[in-house]
Amino acid sequence: MDFDYTDKVKDLQGRVTAFMQDYVIPSEEPISTWFAENRDEWGAAPMMDDLKAEAKKQGLWNLFLPEDSRGAGLSNLEYAPLAEITGWSPTIGPEALNCSAPDTGNMEILSRYGSPEQQEEWLKPLLAGDIRSCFSMTEPAVASSDANNIALRIEDDGDSWVLNGRKWWSSSALRRETKVALVMGVTDPEAEVGKRHSLVCVPIDAPGLTILRSTTVFGFDDRHEGGHGVLDYVDVRVPKSALLGPRGGGFAVAQSRLGPGRIHHCMRLIGMAERAVAMMTERAKTRVTWGEPVADQGVFQTWLADARIQINAARLVVLNAAFKMDTIGNKEARHEIAAAKIMVPQVARDVIDRAIQTFGGAGISSDFPLAYLYVTARYLQVADGPDEVHRRSLARAELKRVPLLKVM
Amino acid sequence: MDFDYTDKVKDLQGRVTAFMQDYVIPSEEPISTWFAENRDEWGAAPMMDDLKAEAKKQGLWNLFLPEDSRGAGLSNLEYAPLAEITGWSPTIGPEALNCSAPDTGNMEILSRYGSPEQQEEWLKPLLAGDIRSCFSMTEPAVASSDANNIALRIEDDGDSWVLNGRKWWSSSALRRETKVALVMGVTDPEAEVGKRHSLVCVPIDAPGLTILRSTTVFGFDDRHEGGHGVLDYVDVRVPKSALLGPRGGGFAVAQSRLGPGRIHHCMRLIGMAERAVAMMTERAKTRVTWGEPVADQGVFQTWLADARIQINAARLVVLNAAFKMDTIGNKEARHEIAAAKIMVPQVARDVIDRAIQTFGGAGISSDFPLAYLYVTARYLQVADGPDEVHRRSLARAELKRVPLLKVM
Amino acid sequence: MDFDYTDKVKDLQGRVTAFMQDYVIPSEEPISTWFAENRDEWGAAPMMDDLKAEAKKQGLWNLFLPEDSRGAGLSNLEYAPLAEITGWSPTIGPEALNCSAPDTGNMEILSRYGSPEQQEEWLKPLLAGDIRSCFSMTEPAVASSDANNIALRIEDDGDSWVLNGRKWWSSSALRRETKVALVMGVTDPEAEVGKRHSLVCVPIDAPGLTILRSTTVFGFDDRHEGGHGVLDYVDVRVPKSALLGPRGGGFAVAQSRLGPGRIHHCMRLIGMAERAVAMMTERAKTRVTWGEPVADQGVFQTWLADARIQINAARLVVLNAAFKMDTIGNKEARHEIAAAKIMVPQVARDVIDRAIQTFGGAGISSDFPLAYLYVTARYLQVADGPDEVHRRSLARAELKRVPLLKVM
Amino acid sequence: MDFDYTDKVKDLQGRVTAFMQDYVIPSEEPISTWFAENRDEWGAAPMMDDLKAEAKKQGLWNLFLPEDSRGAGLSNLEYAPLAEITGWSPTIGPEALNCSAPDTGNMEILSRYGSPEQQEEWLKPLLAGDIRSCFSMTEPAVASSDANNIALRIEDDGDSWVLNGRKWWSSSALRRETKVALVMGVTDPEAEVGKRHSLVCVPIDAPGLTILRSTTVFGFDDRHEGGHGVLDYVDVRVPKSALLGPRGGGFAVAQSRLGPGRIHHCMRLIGMAERAVAMMTERAKTRVTWGEPVADQGVFQTWLADARIQINAARLVVLNAAFKMDTIGNKEARHEIAAAKIMVPQVARDVIDRAIQTFGGAGISSDFPLAYLYVTARYLQVADGPDEVHRRSLARAELKRVPLLKVM
Repeated sequence: MDFDYTDKVKDLQGRVTAFMQDYVIPSEEPISTWFAENRDEWGAAPMMDDLKAEAKKQGLWNLFLPEDSRGAGLSNLEYAPLAEITGWSPTIGPEALNCSAPDTGNMEILSRYGSPEQQEEWLKPLLAGDIRSCFSMTEPAVASSDANNIALRIEDDGDSWVLNGRKWWSSSALRRETKVALVMGVTDPEAEVGKRHSLVCVPIDAPGLTILRSTTVFGFDDRHEGGHGVLDYVDVRVPKSALLGPRGGGFAVAQSRLGPGRIHHCMRLIGMAERAVAMMTERAKTRVTWGEPVADQGVFQTWLADARIQINAARLVVLNAAFKMDTIGNKEARHEIAAAKIMVPQVARDVIDRAIQTFGGAGISSDFPLAYLYVTARYLQVADGPDEVHRRSLARAELKRVPLLKVM
Repeated sequence: MDFDYTDKVKDLQGRVTAFMQDYVIPSEEPISTWFAENRDEWGAAPMMDDLKAEAKKQGLWNLFLPEDSRGAGLSNLEYAPLAEITGWSPTIGPEALNCSAPDTGNMEILSRYGSPEQQEEWLKPLLAGDIRSCFSMTEPAVASSDANNIALRIEDDGDSWVLNGRKWWSSSALRRETKVALVMGVTDPEAEVGKRHSLVCVPIDAPGLTILRSTTVFGFDDRHEGGHGVLDYVDVRVPKSALLGPRGGGFAVAQSRLGPGRIHHCMRLIGMAERAVAMMTERAKTRVTWGEPVADQGVFQTWLADARIQINAARLVVLNAAFKMDTIGNKEARHEIAAAKIMVPQVARDVIDRAIQTFGGAGISSDFPLAYLYVTARYLQVADGPDEVHRRSLARAELKRVPLLKVM
Repeated sequence: MDFDYTDKVKDLQGRVTAFMQDYVIPSEEPISTWFAENRDEWGAAPMMDDLKAEAKKQGLWNLFLPEDSRGAGLSNLEYAPLAEITGWSPTIGPEALNCSAPDTGNMEILSRYGSPEQQEEWLKPLLAGDIRSCFSMTEPAVASSDANNIALRIEDDGDSWVLNGRKWWSSSALRRETKVALVMGVTDPEAEVGKRHSLVCVPIDAPGLTILRSTTVFGFDDRHEGGHGVLDYVDVRVPKSALLGPRGGGFAVAQSRLGPGRIHHCMRLIGMAERAVAMMTERAKTRVTWGEPVADQGVFQTWLADARIQINAARLVVLNAAFKMDTIGNKEARHEIAAAKIMVPQVARDVIDRAIQTFGGAGISSDFPLAYLYVTARYLQVADGPDEVHRRSLARAELKRVPLLKVM
Repeated sequence: MDFDYTDKVKDLQGRVTAFMQDYVIPSEEPISTWFAENRDEWGAAPMMDDLKAEAKKQGLWNLFLPEDSRGAGLSNLEYAPLAEITGWSPTIGPEALNCSAPDTGNMEILSRYGSPEQQEEWLKPLLAGDIRSCFSMTEPAVASSDANNIALRIEDDGDSWVLNGRKWWSSSALRRETKVALVMGVTDPEAEVGKRHSLVCVPIDAPGLTILRSTTVFGFDDRHEGGHGVLDYVDVRVPKSALLGPRGGGFAVAQSRLGPGRIHHCMRLIGMAERAVAMMTERAKTRVTWGEPVADQGVFQTWLADARIQINAARLVVLNAAFKMDTIGNKEARHEIAAAKIMVPQVARDVIDRAIQTFGGAGISSDFPLAYLYVTARYLQVADGPDEVHRRSLARAELKRVPLLKVM
């Protein structure tokens, strides 16, 4: 048991930190201005290309992908503290390093389950940062928290699959660079529960596929990431070769993206919470009420101490889950992942909320990133499975566990 | 002691409910669409005029103003349950009845402290719903939670006051109908603490007054209410007659708007929380996970029960504060108001958050009003004095209180 | 709607307060000492007789009983603020006024459902404060939160009922003055659910009835109230006339004690929380850390403010429930009662916990009453139905409610 | 970074677990019965001697002491998971292995700062488990949370120190085996703050030292550990050689016991929380309400999942603090220790409270250990420095920290 980062990780932390400090943080204001001035743009601001080029040059690219041949070959445990640092600027940092959702998860699926043709067509340009992608799973008409409810039909029609249904929360769908949607639907309605769903790759410009609009998140349009698309699939036809992974294996395949995806989100949330702490600390030192800097006041100090306690605990939970993924596999580590997925957004939310309160009106505005960070944390209590689903899984596992000691 | 509404109130509740059901709720979607299609409009959608005309016709107008001669002559206790009902649709209901902030508070100040000229120029058209107004108090450069920090200078220069400084969170400043800003600033920097600040009325088109932009609230631009203006005052010159209330009496005068204003916000928040409950209940009945309607599941039922408990308690707290305002005066009732101001936004926030979680992705989007309601509740933990300021006042009062029994 | 106490209530508040201040509070230390020195005594300390005599003399007797003929004829709304005051010293005050559980509930049942013989034998001496009683419902072998689980058999055997089973949490069973147990059991196992249980009166010295021992509550033995008896019923035979209320009507009859009983507990909890506030305020003024009285420190002031907010809200909830019991009846008011039963112990617990933390080591000891008060509040989250049962009822009622406005 | 226990630790875990299962758990009931039947006994039940002999025989002795020569030579990181296991039965397990407070801390001080004579007289028999000891620091008359308030006078009088003052919370003082008190007091009232206090060793039977009584903890008398003594020191005279560590260095010396002591408490609390989970899980499987085992109900599952999340996080926090103590030293690790000291009791309290609620009346009684476990967790929010003191230290450290990235 050893709680110190390895030298390899410390070196990478230093390099990612320097990249964030030198390139990403200074880009925040110009990128924000660009979006304000280009109200119809859905996608990266132009300066993103420079950031990506610089990251590539520095070898800070595809750090998320554990495979040596395609990614940086880092373990989850090695990647976690780096993803955390990118979370300090979550709308820019991760994408600059080609480590942003939903592409990361899609690359993982394509890397593991994609056919050579699918890998050539979609994975290669994704790894290069040339295109983007979306993941189309959630549906507006049903409670997607129970994935068995997913109803989009993927019918077997000779040489083709034919898709009919409506999806939403297909993040990044509205970006101009997005070329493909990975779509979950029912191929085998008569099969047993758990074997009915499959995944297919659908070109975003496929006839019959219409991006109706984007949803907002607490008022934010999330244009920087291409929004959250509401997608209509009407007789969308793709060739049989578009099937991604085994027929009826949709849930198993999707898990290969959801496990790492969840933990990546948690890693970044730690960074967001750290940013909130850095900001509230700085602010409290410079604001005075009733003759005393806020930083010297007991109520603020309680917030700050609790923030530190919670963040440090949450980080350990994430690192431990990453370690388990590396050592016993994503599937066996699913309860550690679920625990992190429940705990970390709550911690981030609490911490950021106190930072907002420290800032007062400035905190709830978008003059500072706190309100956006808060919303991101809240969003993740719903996305990738709401807390309640993960609690249910954890409880059921706990009920099966044999306790260390027999006491009753 | 009697916890039943009077017949007069019950009658008004019925009428306001009918107005909301027949006119306001059906306007939500068209107004929302109008704002989506008119992205540069700051102010009421055109259908608001019809709603106001109808409300006037039905005698549901200026219900907030306790004075017989100008308003509806309702006590705070009578108005509270009506304001609650308007809170079910907070971006439309209150304005339709000419009961929306910040105008209500401004009308209260003008009614109590305005000179006949000020009343003729500003109060009369406000009461008629012909113009709107803003209140310019908070400043970006200081911690406004300690009002003594307010720094905008109002200098005595012969026949004029000359204003220099920057304000923000001047809500409604960007509406085209807005004609006047009530501005708090320092007229007497050498006076003792508490006697340095005064209020003046400044025409919104006064030379030197520039509306720089609006701030957002968690991503929402609040265009329906004319945003939250960031206002630059550079050598803004108004005549001496623009002084509102006594020189050096700015805080006392402002209190006459803040007390009722805070409790009005609380009343409406109760209605917002009730709407969230109505929505989550309905949603839970129609969504099924693992073979069981969400409404039948224990976790949801816990949320629902807690929502009911919290809302009913919060309503009593608000009604009691309103009763105290009516019977012992706003000043003596300040601790009851402060308690409501702390408790009710927290309750509303909790309740609405659970409704959001019940809705999942739909809850955090703007396809439903929940995300906006949540943000409104959160906003009120900062606006009109952050919770921490009110807790400080309450604690100091408590420390002076003689306990019922001597036990130590 | 009127939130002021009536003059009648104010007068009674003054008299009960004076009684508490002059007689009850000064008795706390000697009674506590008496119990420490008489470690085998289960029941009232000798000074209790004097207190009861004094209360009777002052006309402060049986205030809880709404019936003119037998009790003080106060409504629930009138009694609530008086019960609150007795809660400042909960182990002495209520009993001194003959207003302590479980006798109050038993008197209510006997008064409403008792036969003339039962009233003569048990009710009359209870009203006089000459004997005590217990209520035997909860069983160790089943989850009593679902009352249908109650399994003690009451068999019909000719002229007699024959009881077999085990009960616990029969509070006051171990007092020497206790003469009768009201026992819930199954008389009609084949009847439909809800009609299987009945109540019988069993003399505490009935052959076959053994008081095995008392349970503690978090380490407290509660000897002052006669503990919490574990009772074994083995072929306990009582005459047919011992049936209390209709056969099969056990639940309905029990409700007549549980409704008022729950709200009485809540009333007293408000008083306990007030005592905690009075104590923490006083303590904080006299203790200094890092050069500043604790009372002047922000963290303490936050606790104090929140205590005030929570207590005042909880009191309103209790008063409103009492009002509803008076105006629409206990049955129709059951949801208001349930809400109070959930909210008030939680509030009391929070408030008292902060008082304990203010006292530090002194708070968790029994040198001060805070630890006992805390445990009493915690106890009430389990007693008379755990919170979860009441939440379930509230949620089911809420699901049936028609919302004020139709919004979905 | 490695989150797996070493083989050495796994082996020890297995051995301690077996000892607990085979010897300690089966002793719980007879020891509890012995205390019930011997109401005036303060100290170990007779069966404790056998347990200690067995533990010694198995080499499970003094595991807490990192020094090879005297203790087991385990690092804090190695000891932590073992202490956790002893926490499953906290009134028996730790003492059986000679690892119970306050002796462990006293042995650490004596081992590090004791003179050869002190070590011979006190340390040696403590290590052998032949005597016990107490630590006399907290005082009833002042807020001990600010240690500078400690006022007991230790006057320099020729060859002697003369002690005058009153202490309380001197745990274990009432045990018959207790021979020595380590006493903190003021030797140098004129020195600068932080250099005024010193420690001396005082034989428990020293003339002038009177054990007045024991305080309770939420009703528990804690006789098994010798209670919590209230000690009067009146002209207690000890030789100059009784000084423990340097004169004026009392705080620094005490820290050498408080750091490890705090983390040991946290370790054991993890075990207590695990026991609560094991118990609630088992209970929920066997109790049925409304036709469904409690274990299958959503509300219970939420509690269980949250318990698992919180405990696992808390364990990581403790292990990381232990690792830091081993690698950077107790002083540098003080913030990690403080964080654990705040977080873990809160987690344990939450978890145990839910277990109590699952058990209902059985949970608050002493028929099961849950109520005692709860009180132990609550106690630790006050003992060894209340949470508020540790939050203050953490916040002040945080305010000095340089953030990873400069963002404001």
